[in-house]
Amino acid sequence: MIRPDQELQPGQLLARGVCRHLRSHGFVSVEEFVPVRGLRVDVMALGPKGELWVIECKSSRTDYLSDRKWSGYLDWCDRFFWAVDEAFPAEMLPDETGLIVADSHDAEILRMAPEGRLPAARRKVMIRKFATHAARRLQAYRDPKLPPLPEVEPD
Amino acid sequence: MIRPDQELQPGQLLARGVCRHLRSHGFVSVEEFVPVRGLRVDVMALGPKGELWVIECKSSRTDYLSDRKWSGYLDWCDRFFWAVDEAFPAEMLPDETGLIVADSHDAEILRMAPEGRLPAARRKVMIRKFATHAARRLQAYRDPKLPPLPEVEPD
Repeated sequence: MIRPDQELQPGQLLARGVCRHLRSHGFVSVEEFVPVRGLRVDVMALGPKGELWVIECKSSRTDYLSDRKWSGYLDWCDRFFWAVDEAFPAEMLPDETGLIVADSHDAEILRMAPEGRLPAARRKVMIRKFATHAARRLQAYRDPKLPPLPEVEPD
Repeated sequence: MIRPDQELQPGQLLARGVCRHLRSHGFVSVEEFVPVRGLRVDVMALGPKGELWVIECKSSRTDYLSDRKWSGYLDWCDRFFWAVDEAFPAEMLPDETGLIVADSHDAEILRMAPEGRLPAARRKVMIRKFATHAARRLQAYRDPKLPPLPEVEPD
């Protein structure tokens, strides 16, 4: 399950740099997180005070333009960021979103996203979902012979 | 970091079976979780409604008798269980605790632990800590070349 760099998609390489960098802000992260059925975010990060940030990683103009769902992500986080590489035309991105420049090794927040605080009940549900997501994927690494459950788990 | 069976301690092998089994109850688990400085529990499990269970894995009579801290774990969970193997003299264990019989492949709850519900504020802190623990360890697997942070992270 540990995939070498060349097997990761460009967006996944950006996500790796983003997740590394977010640690310096005290945030832990998971990738490919599903806040609600039908939505999947590239990075969901959890801060030391329970803050939730969503980061969408866009490797190209086309990748960005094909994402018609992004405004829906705003309802599931306190702050929303794009992560792009240095070559990306950042002026395309909406002003009212955060901006991170990343590569596969590291990243930097260039523009802090405005805050739209989650309601307490939703934050509670999201943090529990984050915990479940992280623990399930961790177990798959820790116990690679983990037998599948007889039934499909609800998400 | 994925260690073959022969490198795991007897207690860790029990923990693996416990974590596998808990999935069938809808629980996800992390191992070696620190609810508060100075206390480390073998398994902390998180249920679908935010329930928190602690499971201490004891591979032998001596292992059990040397644990003088266990009653302190009760303050950090809704239910507390011992996990032991079939050969363990289960009659030694206090009646008012849960009992799981485990091996390295699976486990079974023989006696449900009584419930002592956590206060809401503590549950919230514990779930956030659980999420942080799981995400940090997951990242170490996902990104094995993760550079260390310049400073020690608070726990």
